[in-house]
Amino acid sequence: MRVIEKIEEYRNIRPELTEPVGFVPTMGYLHEGHLSLVKRARNENKSVVVSIFVNPTQFGPNEDFKSYPRDTERDLNMLEPYTDIVFMPSPEEMYPPNYDSWVDIEGITDVLEGAKRPGHFRGVATVCTKLFNIVQPASAYFARKDAQQLLVIKKMVKDLNLPLEIVTCPTIRERDGLAMSSRLYKSLILALHTYESGERKAGTIRGKMTVLIEQEPLAQIEYISVADTETLQELDKIEEKALVSMAVKIGTTRLIDNVILED
Amino acid sequence: MRVIEKIEEYRNIRPELTEPVGFVPTMGYLHEGHLSLVKRARNENKSVVVSIFVNPTQFGPNEDFKSYPRDTERDLNMLEPYTDIVFMPSPEEMYPPNYDSWVDIEGITDVLEGAKRPGHFRGVATVCTKLFNIVQPASAYFARKDAQQLLVIKKMVKDLNLPLEIVTCPTIRERDGLAMSSRLYKSLILALHTYESGERKAGTIRGKMTVLIEQEPLAQIEYISVADTETLQELDKIEEKALVSMAVKIGTTRLIDNVILED
Repeated sequence: MRVIEKIEEYRNIRPELTEPVGFVPTMGYLHEGHLSLVKRARNENKSVVVSIFVNPTQFGPNEDFKSYPRDTERDLNMLEPYTDIVFMPSPEEMYPPNYDSWVDIEGITDVLEGAKRPGHFRGVATVCTKLFNIVQPASAYFARKDAQQLLVIKKMVKDLNLPLEIVTCPTIRERDGLAMSSRLYKSLILALHTYESGERKAGTIRGKMTVLIEQEPLAQIEYISVADTETLQELDKIEEKALVSMAVKIGTTRLIDNVILED
Repeated sequence: MRVIEKIEEYRNIRPELTEPVGFVPTMGYLHEGHLSLVKRARNENKSVVVSIFVNPTQFGPNEDFKSYPRDTERDLNMLEPYTDIVFMPSPEEMYPPNYDSWVDIEGITDVLEGAKRPGHFRGVATVCTKLFNIVQPASAYFARKDAQQLLVIKKMVKDLNLPLEIVTCPTIRERDGLAMSSRLYKSLILALHTYESGERKAGTIRGKMTVLIEQEPLAQIEYISVADTETLQELDKIEEKALVSMAVKIGTTRLIDNVILED
């Protein structure tokens, strides 16, 4: 496994990588969820590239870029058995002075996370475009957990004709001991069961979830959404399919999660 | 020479092209200037791809996308001796329904053409990103005539790490019989001579050019600029180098031209 910090250095060795190249972009501080993406990339490609980059441009002014957790040594040990190249640029390498170019995906970024975190998806779309252009993979692997982010990236790849495939993988839920996280998860299960028992009114599903989460005294709900899976517009009545997603704050910790309802 | 209208079809045959691939993006209605780019691409590459696409997203609401001149048969005849593939997509192929992704270059697009034509460079940057992603060339060839456009594209390629080289070629000035065009040209020569004779005040150079162009009764000056060649900020005093550029309307015809002043 080779660790590369410079774009130029990566470009020079890129022709030596055996095709196809599978790519897993991460912000580091890896857990089993990331590793399941890396293992899948390993199974489906001849070369595996993982990036570790805490992207400053996707954090808002009141969000904690500086205190985002980092543990490079542990990350590298976890990746070693499955990875050919770890690309780990500095913020200055990715955004040199006078950096001025941005990728904007309109429409689906106006709601949910996009509404709560202005500029967030501009940062995500821009850094993904840059990483894809640098790494030049045949496929990039993403977890379904960040549902809106995944939709934004897939839309960008389609609209801008980026020459790679986006592979989506099931969310691996960690037992992280946070009682609230499990209550969030229970509220998604409740949405699923309510839908399976025949309920099609989005408002009823939102209401049942809200009641369950509000039993947690510290919880502050930012949104509970039952939306179209493509446009992310809120639904009144579910026709065939819906994305249920939510963001909840407990103190300074902000949790998001989602599930798809489908016939 | 093969003419391809669908992105999917191009993607399928892309692996068959011998590397390196040189690319010349055009809006059609070709003249000697375009052809000099195509010939240079031919000399420097094993395969040559030319796109013909009148890009609707770079025209403003009061600009004439519909009446932009087109002559495909003549274009194809001109390209035939030098070109392997002509990529000629429809607007719907490039911008399908619900298209929502845009590339924005900030800073240098706020002035000159960007100020006069809001949204123009967003359209240019977006279509170039798309075409580069589709064609996947080693190099793309541009004339220096549209100085600001070239700066925008080079900045975009650098910032977004697009994996290709931008090759810039001298402007071929056509004898198009427009007396005014020659007067514009004379005002650039005047700027050059004034600079060469030692004048370093940008205002003096702007003034001399203005006086010359205003001798043409129908001319309406949109801007005459003496600016930094990187940031495009207007200069008071020229240190080492400056971009002199101008836009002049004569009736409904809008002409732009530029020259670099350099020690």
